Amino acid sequence: MYYVGVDIGGTKIAAGLITKDGYILHKDSIATLRERNYSDIIKDIGELVLDVINKGGTKIQDVEYIGIGTPGTVNIEEGKVIYCNSINLTNVHIKDEIQKYIRLPVFVDNDANCAAIAESVIGSASEFMNSITLTLGTGIGCGIILNGKIFRGFSSAAGEAGHMVIEVDGKQCTCGRKGCFEAYASATALINDTKKAAIKYPDSIINNLVKRDLNLIDGKTAFDAAAADDKAGIMVIDNYIKYLAEGTVNLINILRPEVVVIGGGISTQGENLMQPLRKLIQKGIYGGDELPKITIRAASLVNDAGIIGAAMLGRMG
Amino acid sequence: MYYVGVDIGGTKIAAGLITKDGYILHKDSIATLRERNYSDIIKDIGELVLDVINKGGTKIQDVEYIGIGTPGTVNIEEGKVIYCNSINLTNVHIKDEIQKYIRLPVFVDNDANCAAIAESVIGSASEFMNSITLTLGTGIGCGIILNGKIFRGFSSAAGEAGHMVIEVDGKQCTCGRKGCFEAYASATALINDTKKAAIKYPDSIINNLVKRDLNLIDGKTAFDAAAADDKAGIMVIDNYIKYLAEGTVNLINILRPEVVVIGGGISTQGENLMQPLRKLIQKGIYGGDELPKITIRAASLVNDAGIIGAAMLGRMG
Repeated sequence: MYYVGVDIGGTKIAAGLITKDGYILHKDSIATLRERNYSDIIKDIGELVLDVINKGGTKIQDVEYIGIGTPGTVNIEEGKVIYCNSINLTNVHIKDEIQKYIRLPVFVDNDANCAAIAESVIGSASEFMNSITLTLGTGIGCGIILNGKIFRGFSSAAGEAGHMVIEVDGKQCTCGRKGCFEAYASATALINDTKKAAIKYPDSIINNLVKRDLNLIDGKTAFDAAAADDKAGIMVIDNYIKYLAEGTVNLINILRPEVVVIGGGISTQGENLMQPLRKLIQKGIYGGDELPKITIRAASLVNDAGIIGAAMLGRMG
Repeated sequence: MYYVGVDIGGTKIAAGLITKDGYILHKDSIATLRERNYSDIIKDIGELVLDVINKGGTKIQDVEYIGIGTPGTVNIEEGKVIYCNSINLTNVHIKDEIQKYIRLPVFVDNDANCAAIAESVIGSASEFMNSITLTLGTGIGCGIILNGKIFRGFSSAAGEAGHMVIEVDGKQCTCGRKGCFEAYASATALINDTKKAAIKYPDSIINNLVKRDLNLIDGKTAFDAAAADDKAGIMVIDNYIKYLAEGTVNLINILRPEVVVIGGGISTQGENLMQPLRKLIQKGIYGGDELPKITIRAASLVNDAGIIGAAMLGRMG
């Protein structure tokens, strides 16, 4: 049997045909176009799922279920989004809506929970029973694994660490608060900071890298500039990692996991990101060197963690 | 059988002779004098314990064990403090040291964990299985109860929510970080803010309340001034509750408990504190009114939660 995993993101929706052990047979993605009505989004997801099943060389009969990861808070039993601040999915009964297009069992959970499940089962946290996975994307997702299981909290709303204020009265966040972690340390925040630096420092390499087209700036641009010793690039990256460390240290001080996994596209920067991040985290955590060390790792499944974890929902959720 | 509970605080050390059901037969306290060497502190605790047993009208033979709550991170199995940033107890084997004076079983845990156990078993969180208890004192303690049990995390170091940064590069904290929750929302922070306001606004009622002796300012002073419509007092209290709300919302967004219990002396302000706090929390939490409400309550055991919870350690810890 196979499994389809869907990862609904703020920018794109990915889907994959996945084996029992988490291998991807085929994957594809479409643009989310997040301002749309939910019914158009669901219709496109239905088509995407059928497409990856077909192109993966199998049939609906060979698929056991569809797992779907979505931003926001999910009623797991009903497969319904209770609240989502980034896409028009609040109160959408995703399970029922998808089943209008495909007659398969459907499991729905928070997207960061899916990524955390995947990293915990076959990824960077697989030797540990207690982990936190952070996904740095449009926002910051957070999946908490305690004793090998996703920790969901009251009304399944735990893990909204992206909406932890690290700067009272700071930058406006989409959730309504000011100064949230994700307003400083998401990929979106990094891209915005890179754009500002490009404008403020016209001689920065950043401008050459994107041929002065600010729309081409992505989460990699400032890292590339910093690697070329560009002052503006270094400033952007140092500042980004500082805020990422502050939020991560907060989570460690509160939850004390054995391992923190950093996911999302930015985590492909590897040691350029992880080495300074580890140093700042170790300096900041309560107890410092007096307490056993926390492992800090880049995600091993990166952007595929969402679809792989979603495909595990019916068995591991 | 009876139980002795000891609560080691930054300012005073309290001990009580407690019944099985959490009734206090006798209690007393001594000054911590936190700059002292640990051996002097332990010796005084030994005498205090013997004293409450005597004055409680019982004998050592009728006491089943001594439970001790201490700030910092505790190795529960060994009864040893692994790390404490506020009192000289790092690496002190409290269990062994106390047993030099009294031959009884000794259980040691974090002080906020003790308060959380007491509130969870017989206090404000007793109808809930998942709670967070915050103790606003010299610092901010945090005890997390999941499924009716204290959540300790890796190396028992979870729950250090007082050391969650809510203002990057903010006020210096005793832990080494800048901008920690407890630097803004502990009783110490409130007292410091009240002193500053007293100096800045010489006409404020605050100065009358303490007869211009700043050393007489305590966690109640600004509340009393605010109740008398004093502008400086209102400013101090509004600012204090704002920061307390920000940190509490962070914890709710991350852990989503059913109830948050606010403890420590300040919680005796009751609705003067709780009503504005609840309003700000409800406004800030992820999902707002879309998600089931979180109960926010003042502690019912207040400053006795520490000794009562410590006295429960051998059975509930």
